[in-house]
Amino acid sequence: MGSQLNTSVPTRLPGGKNSTAEKLLVAASELMIERASIEVSLSDIAQKSGVNAALVKYHFGNKDGLLLALLARDAATEMTQLEYLISQPIQPTAKLRLHIGGIIRAYHQFPYMNRLIHYLLHESTPDAADEVSKFFVAPLLDFQRRLLAEGVKADEFRDIDPVMFYTSLVGACDHLFFGRHAMSRATGVGPVTDEVCRQYIKHMEALICGGLLKANNEKGSAAAG
Amino acid sequence: MGSQLNTSVPTRLPGGKNSTAEKLLVAASELMIERASIEVSLSDIAQKSGVNAALVKYHFGNKDGLLLALLARDAATEMTQLEYLISQPIQPTAKLRLHIGGIIRAYHQFPYMNRLIHYLLHESTPDAADEVSKFFVAPLLDFQRRLLAEGVKADEFRDIDPVMFYTSLVGACDHLFFGRHAMSRATGVGPVTDEVCRQYIKHMEALICGGLLKANNEKGSAAAG
Repeated sequence: MGSQLNTSVPTRLPGGKNSTAEKLLVAASELMIERASIEVSLSDIAQKSGVNAALVKYHFGNKDGLLLALLARDAATEMTQLEYLISQPIQPTAKLRLHIGGIIRAYHQFPYMNRLIHYLLHESTPDAADEVSKFFVAPLLDFQRRLLAEGVKADEFRDIDPVMFYTSLVGACDHLFFGRHAMSRATGVGPVTDEVCRQYIKHMEALICGGLLKANNEKGSAAAG
Repeated sequence: MGSQLNTSVPTRLPGGKNSTAEKLLVAASELMIERASIEVSLSDIAQKSGVNAALVKYHFGNKDGLLLALLARDAATEMTQLEYLISQPIQPTAKLRLHIGGIIRAYHQFPYMNRLIHYLLHESTPDAADEVSKFFVAPLLDFQRRLLAEGVKADEFRDIDPVMFYTSLVGACDHLFFGRHAMSRATGVGPVTDEVCRQYIKHMEALICGGLLKANNEKGSAAAG
């Protein structure tokens, strides 16, 4: 594979650099969704995209570079939506509910996102981990920090530590996708279908807004709904 | 390594089978805590325990067998505590608070638990995954199911889906340990010290019981505290 990368330069580029890079990202993303795994080889990606494997090196340096670019692409889409959301003229509680649904839908749409994040943070290079922190963790945390401040200012939220809030909300959303496998083995719980996703969004909205205790929940539903 | 396993049978066993197996588990656990990683080799475990590496095969079959036994050992301790907790003559809300603290403290005490669970569920054999589901996921889910039913019966909890509750609570607790690394890179958030652990327990108790909305929280604190 190493020598192949340096010898076979493709002669046909269907549409220039960006189009080629984009094709590789689309192919990688589709393969990961099909296989429900981030274990895809460069040659599989090349084959699916119709792009020569040598161009991965040209565009992304190596496979981890491609994975990083894929996550960056998806994260950028999400962050744009967060900026749009926070600028809306609606109550902080309504923004929070939309945000919860947004996270869960993003993970459902891109189930490999979780795994890429864990892989690039824990098993790749320190540089890759720094990049993921910069384009994913930091802006998401920053968004939540602003939303929480807005909610406190509007007297809708109690004062809560943003880092702890981030940890619990993102962790709980992650786990629907990361932990589901184990639960289905243990209890006959089914896979994460669109319907399960919708139910989990409702569950998380209710839990984050109003908690589990009955007295709170009744008040919470009234206040929020 | 393979041939070594079949040739060097140890002549000295300091205390019989169980003691040897226990020593290997203790050594594996200590190494994982020291390194904050489950990447420990059989020879490292053997060296630290003073036990011949060949005995790993004898007691556990292979390295994944040892990892499974280690997780089973720790899970058994936790499950005993859960049975003790649910039998206590205290309110369901009080049990829930103790349970939240128990999960977070268990992960803090055994930070490798998370990673072992993920590894054995996703990267080892289907048999290993089934075992983890049986001795870890299923009893924990069963405990929460009973606790939730008790809370509903006592009119303290609203009716909530146990599988979804499990997913969000365990996910949020997991993430303090699994996701912290990323957050420290992004924002200068420090490591999970004893103090961070205590704060997260308080945070999770408040969030799970009363949620984020201010009206709820005031009522929640009054009802729960």
